[in-house]
Amino acid sequence: MLHSMPLKLKCCCDTSTKSPLLMLPLLFYQTMAEPRTSSIDGKLAEEFAVPAHVEEVREKMAAFACRHAEAGRRVVLITSGGTKVPLESRTVRFLDNFSSGRRGASSAEYFIDSGYAVIFLHRHRSLYPYTRMFLTINMLDALQFRGGEGAGEVVVNQQVLPGIAGVLKRYNQVKDGGLLLPIEFNTLSEYLHLLKAAAQALSAIGSKAMFYLAAAVSDFYIPASEMPEHKIQSSNGPLQLSMKMVPKLLSPLVKDWAPQAFVTSFKLETDSAILLDRARQALAAYRHQAVVANVLDSRRGYVVVVTPDTQAELVLTEDEAEKDVEIEERIVSNLTSAHSKFISQQAGSLSISVPSSSSDSESSRAITSSWEAVRRV
Amino acid sequence: MLHSMPLKLKCCCDTSTKSPLLMLPLLFYQTMAEPRTSSIDGKLAEEFAVPAHVEEVREKMAAFACRHAEAGRRVVLITSGGTKVPLESRTVRFLDNFSSGRRGASSAEYFIDSGYAVIFLHRHRSLYPYTRMFLTINMLDALQFRGGEGAGEVVVNQQVLPGIAGVLKRYNQVKDGGLLLPIEFNTLSEYLHLLKAAAQALSAIGSKAMFYLAAAVSDFYIPASEMPEHKIQSSNGPLQLSMKMVPKLLSPLVKDWAPQAFVTSFKLETDSAILLDRARQALAAYRHQAVVANVLDSRRGYVVVVTPDTQAELVLTEDEAEKDVEIEERIVSNLTSAHSKFISQQAGSLSISVPSSSSDSESSRAITSSWEAVRRV
Repeated sequence: MLHSMPLKLKCCCDTSTKSPLLMLPLLFYQTMAEPRTSSIDGKLAEEFAVPAHVEEVREKMAAFACRHAEAGRRVVLITSGGTKVPLESRTVRFLDNFSSGRRGASSAEYFIDSGYAVIFLHRHRSLYPYTRMFLTINMLDALQFRGGEGAGEVVVNQQVLPGIAGVLKRYNQVKDGGLLLPIEFNTLSEYLHLLKAAAQALSAIGSKAMFYLAAAVSDFYIPASEMPEHKIQSSNGPLQLSMKMVPKLLSPLVKDWAPQAFVTSFKLETDSAILLDRARQALAAYRHQAVVANVLDSRRGYVVVVTPDTQAELVLTEDEAEKDVEIEERIVSNLTSAHSKFISQQAGSLSISVPSSSSDSESSRAITSSWEAVRRV
Repeated sequence: MLHSMPLKLKCCCDTSTKSPLLMLPLLFYQTMAEPRTSSIDGKLAEEFAVPAHVEEVREKMAAFACRHAEAGRRVVLITSGGTKVPLESRTVRFLDNFSSGRRGASSAEYFIDSGYAVIFLHRHRSLYPYTRMFLTINMLDALQFRGGEGAGEVVVNQQVLPGIAGVLKRYNQVKDGGLLLPIEFNTLSEYLHLLKAAAQALSAIGSKAMFYLAAAVSDFYIPASEMPEHKIQSSNGPLQLSMKMVPKLLSPLVKDWAPQAFVTSFKLETDSAILLDRARQALAAYRHQAVVANVLDSRRGYVVVVTPDTQAELVLTEDEAEKDVEIEERIVSNLTSAHSKFISQQAGSLSISVPSSSSDSESSRAITSSWEAVRRV
């Protein structure tokens, strides 16, 4: 497959890797990262409406990832917000998952502070990075009219929004630096197809890609073929819904679509008694790198980052919580360290032993999954 | 029941009514408006969690209504946004109804422009009056930092938000005038209890109250007693949901809770073929004053206001839509005219023939339901 290298190099090369010895595995990743057809691909195409702009978005994400990888940056794909699961094709009613998008938005800021470029795949109108300060106020209550010639000026009252000047400067730096690529989804179908496109786009940068799958994705859906066209009539009596299981994209993502990437999923439960078991089951089933386990009521102050070999509790003290320290800062710090080790271990193991075919991707993954215990915060 | 009059006068009197002759029916309304117990009250209390603050909110709404009625203003209760129907008591998943809250928010502004005071019972984070301009932009893209001594200033770029100065002035006038009382709900249960509280609060001002029930309320729910406590596990396989019918509050609202008020409900369908029939069925079943019938795809440009005797089509031309004319302006104009006629007809009929007991409320409603055809726009 080495004949395809020059083509790959045209769209994306890793300039941070200077040694010809180290170039080989990286180029190999790019070739190997071509998606394989799996049964989930067929199911996705059949049962979940493909968004019209998916190809365009894939190209945009791939260009973003390559540009930043060439500049020596790692790239994280953050998913954020809940998914909308329509009950009718002309949708009035839908199933949703609780999520304000706060964790994803806040984490995006900390990843950028840590030197990452961020693809922010988020639910339409969920919380956006750098806008948390607007969450609990009506913007009009923070504005003041200042008369004068003409229409006059409208000025932000910095007593109502004390941090606004600093946040605005940082937002503009990030925008000017092109460090944040926002992509929106609304329905579950859009989410699934865009996640697949993102994974394929990011596969080109190998282990420099991180997936931070914080979106609250529905486990259940009604296939398009079984969905009524029109609004369900309440005059027909009580509602019986029969919903199918949403295919778990984590499996093809880890195995086929972006096999060199560092993948973190999230597990939210309401029952803490089953949480760590569920997190470990997910790691065993999907063989990815980390699960951030959290309980609904305490999610802002306590999470456990679970890896195949370790678990790290991240806790905010009451004092820290009062000072608006955010647990996302700890999560991102933990995962970026782990990602660094992952990258150097992958590079080390692969410069010695280059797999001879793409089916070996799992064995290289097995080697790198033994990264040492993340330190407790 | 006349012995109760002085007590009623303490909390709310109608100062716009100068004639002693006309005082009688108005005071009579206040006595008659005491809620009667119905089977729905029992069901509400049993199957839908009562919000802790409902009494406090009821008092706030009653004080608001009385204050404005005393100042000669009519009061409209607008409901807006979709309802969240939990599938678990520690809620991760929920059923929702499509609604941005745009119609409610926009209508609130037109009602205030028409001299009404507005109780805005809206879904948490649905669109708020005077904030439509922020809907499609990130506020940070509309702000500019202006350096100088100290922290510097943050100013709104009026090229990005051209109307901001005017909107801000109007918003502050409305706030200073206390013309808008915002009340939030999130779940279906909160909505139902707060609507009942609002109806009871508004009953004291009789026919001066209008209900404008634009919220997209779920027809289905899972009773608290049948709801799992914890997050439904996807490992248990496909999801079978059995949802009960939500009781129709329109019935006790019209009959018992606020029998003198002018009540408008909304009917949204995706299938235009059944829409007008459904609207007429609702009028026949609940015996209220008007239904605003609209189809999902065309709701921004075309509605039909259906009354027992008339139907008025309200349409925006393409030219009007391009100039950002809003159909809510037409809807509110239509309904405020109808409300005026309703009030004078009620006053006229009741000053001649005062019902002798509260059970006559329906006969007085029958008289007033024959208000003449609303004009077509």
